[in-house]
Order: sequence, then C-alpha cells, then structure tokens
Amino acid sequence: MIPDTDALIAAACAAADVAGAVIRPFFRARIVTDQKADRSPVTIADRTAEQAMRAVLSERFPAHGILGEEFGLERPDAAFRWVLDPIDGTRAFITGRPTFGTLIALFHDERPIVGVIDQPVTGERWIGVDGQPTVFRGPYGGVAECRPLAALSDAELSCTSPEMFGADMPRFERLRRVVRRNSWGGDCYAHGLVALGLIDIVVEADMKVWDWGALVPVIEGAGGSVTDWQGQPLRPGGDGRVLSVGDKTLLPAILRELNHSPVASV
Amino acid sequence: MIPDTDALIAAACAAADVAGAVIRPFFRARIVTDQKADRSPVTIADRTAEQAMRAVLSERFPAHGILGEEFGLERPDAAFRWVLDPIDGTRAFITGRPTFGTLIALFHDERPIVGVIDQPVTGERWIGVDGQPTVFRGPYGGVAECRPLAALSDAELSCTSPEMFGADMPRFERLRRVVRRNSWGGDCYAHGLVALGLIDIVVEADMKVWDWGALVPVIEGAGGSVTDWQGQPLRPGGDGRVLSVGDKTLLPAILRELNHSPVASV
Repeated sequence: MIPDTDALIAAACAAADVAGAVIRPFFRARIVTDQKADRSPVTIADRTAEQAMRAVLSERFPAHGILGEEFGLERPDAAFRWVLDPIDGTRAFITGRPTFGTLIALFHDERPIVGVIDQPVTGERWIGVDGQPTVFRGPYGGVAECRPLAALSDAELSCTSPEMFGADMPRFERLRRVVRRNSWGGDCYAHGLVALGLIDIVVEADMKVWDWGALVPVIEGAGGSVTDWQGQPLRPGGDGRVLSVGDKTLLPAILRELNHSPVASV
Repeated sequence: MIPDTDALIAAACAAADVAGAVIRPFFRARIVTDQKADRSPVTIADRTAEQAMRAVLSERFPAHGILGEEFGLERPDAAFRWVLDPIDGTRAFITGRPTFGTLIALFHDERPIVGVIDQPVTGERWIGVDGQPTVFRGPYGGVAECRPLAALSDAELSCTSPEMFGADMPRFERLRRVVRRNSWGGDCYAHGLVALGLIDIVVEADMKVWDWGALVPVIEGAGGSVTDWQGQPLRPGGDGRVLSVGDKTLLPAILRELNHSPVASV
C-alpha cells in the first residue's frame, strides 16, 4: 500500500527538523584541529543527526527501509527506502558557510518520490514530491520555479569543486566555454537554486545516492530535470555523474557538449 | 585633524545600512536575461547602493574623498578616502547565494584604517578598526578571533575561483597540496570567515583596492594578517594578489610555497 503523500511529507519534514536541531549547535563551534576524525564536531553532528532522523522515520513508518552514510541500510527488502545525508557539503559546514544542507529522500522501487533539501541555519527548505509542484520557504525570498532560457549561452553554470571531475574535466570545460558564466561551491544548495530559477545548470561527478536522491523531486517539481550525463534517469549504483538542468529544452545541447567526441584529425 | 573613531564607525555602519536597504529587494529577483548589462538588476542595485553610500558619507564627512567602482573618485587630494564596493561577489549575488558582501573601507594616506564587511541578506557584519579588536555580529554565531594552528598541514584554504589565477595557478597549487583542504567560492565572505577562525588562509589574485581595503582592518583586528604574496602590506595600485592568513606564525611557510622557484634540473 502506498502511504498518503501528506504523511510522507510530514515525516520528511519532522526528520529535517530534528536533524537541524542537532546540527545547529555545532555550526561555527570552535573546532580543535588535533581531534581524531571520529571525535570531530562534524562527525558527531553527522552521526547524531542521522540517528535522530532514523528514530523519527522508523517510528512513523516501521516497514520502510533506511539508508544513511554513517549507519548503513536497515530493512534492505522494503519497497520504500528513506535515504539520508545529514550534512551534505562537509567543507561548507566546517568552514562556517550557511550553504551546506540536510538531504532526505524517499525511494520507491529505486526511484525518488519525495525529496527535502533543508538548510538548518538559514531556515530555507525545499520540498519536492513526484508529480507535484515543489514548495520552497525561507527568509530571503525565492519562488520554486525553474526559469526558461533562450539559449545555452545565457546559462549560469555551477559546480561544487573542480577536483570532483578527475578525468572528466575536459568534458566539463567544453560545457563551461559555451555558457554565460560558471561559479564554484554550493553542494546541494546550488541544486536548490536551480529549482528557484537562479542557476540554470549544475554538473557534478562522484555523487552517491544520498547526495542526489532528494534533488530529483525538488528540481523536477520546479520544472527542471536531474539525470546522468547521458540524459538518463539516475539510479542507485550508477556512475555518480549528475546533471541538473532548469530549462529542459537545453538538455540536448548540454549533452552534446558533455559527450562530444573530437573527430580524429586525419 | 583625525576624526574620532566612533564617528567613523557610525558613518561606515550607516553606509552599510543604506546599501543593504537598496540591495535586498534585488536579491533573488527574477532576472530577465536578455536585459542589457546597464539595465540588469545587479547593475541597478550596484549603482544605486553606491550613490546612497556616497550621500551618507559626504553628508557626515564633506572633506573626505570617496572612491567607488561605478562612479570614480571624488576629492582625490583628501588625506581620508572612503573606498566602496556595494556588491562584492557579483556571481554569488546573481545566483542567489547569501555570500556576497558590501565592502566599506576608510583609507588614511593609502592605509586602510576602518573596514566593514556587511552581508545584507543574512544580517552579518564585521567591523574592523586599526589597532582595535574586530567586532562581529550576526544570527548564526561566530567570534571575531582568528584561530591558532599547529601546522600548515592543518589549514583550511579557500579561494573564490580557480579562473582568477591565470598564470599563477601553479603557485596556488603548490600551497594547496600542503594544506588540509581547499574549498571554492566565497568572495569577501571567506575573508570574514578567516576573522572568525573558521578558514585559515584565503589566496586570491586580480583584486582591486575596493575588493581588499575593508578586509585588512577586519582580519588584523581579529589577530590575522592581509598582505600581498610577498608578505608585504597591500597598497592601492599593487599587483592585485592578496593573502589573508589567520595564524601569522604560518606566514613564512605559506610564502615559501607561493614563491618557490623550482631548482633547474641539471
């Protein structure tokens, strides 16, 4: 039986609330740099928030599976699976930038049907549900609607860090050269800005299922698309390449740049 | 006659207040991408905020000079000169990230003696005065005090964008390889995070006087240093390379990495 959507959204929001309550006191706390990794504030915040979210979700939906980075997979055979990333954007969190996020996704048969992006410091939250318009709330304004673009040359591109590309860097560079502008940094927050019509394309690599699951319903519900670099739906266990696009009519042109095979010179 | 410090701080804060009031309504406004550059929301916000700051400062200190990117230099012979950047971090502003900033500096004989970094969306403000402890206020916590580090290998490095380095990229890369971690993005906000002891080093190039003037009193008043890539004080008309360091004892080691001349192989 498919649970009613309102109950799923309420559960995801309750999980985001409890994660935020755990995480906020660690934000901008003085970090003693010689602490061992498993005692660092970011690790404590991450683990404690994941445990708190698991408790909330298990209580409401005891038959659902739960996957998180820190504590693995519970109930692997369940058709519904919550996928959690308490702190997406560890570097942003550690350096005191309010652009990390808590990601909560609900998968049904390997497809994300609910997604929440929550910024617990600014109070911004994106709520996406398969087949419904995305909802956004926050104190700085913004409307959950991707923007139309006349041409790829008008596009604002973004990526968290050049280091994530490795051997894919030339593919990213080809795309970067034909857009209006690129900006670095952002993690899940940049994908949230695609859903607000402020960024047009985010290209990333090396993404795990907890990094991208929540983004799909949020961006699709705002009119955009989230795919792999071939324009295909993302799947758990895929190659980690993620492409968020606000105006889907640009997708073919973007895919051509990312997948261009240079003609061998004769 | 040197004006009293409280009056200078009050004027800088009044200028930041009025700039924020002008800028906030343009943040996350829907940008019509086919508008000409001189009619774009960012240009209107930038110019209007600069005019408003000039009016506030001229009224309080009619004998002082004022330099801004949009409207040039007034009273070039004045010993005191306000230096203004209404929106530092244009890309961040355009893409809806609350990490751009308004920068206000007061120079006396080419040396910045007052600096304000203001984030008008989050409500964070750093106030630096030559010879005084930096003051920070904001809703997310943070204390204006750079942190001590045991070794360069513990350092959090940051830079707005790799594109700003051009031919200096190998020099940056040498430093990047010996620190703990690098993160991208941030503009003036990253320098503010140096003053909060959350980032240890920011290395940038191609900076104009309005990009760095306000940073100097803020970071020095928090215990750090802002210099060129030779460790020398910044001067208007310098080469645009800027190095902010939280723990000054690391400066010699950082300068060695940035200025390493490879020994020619024999």
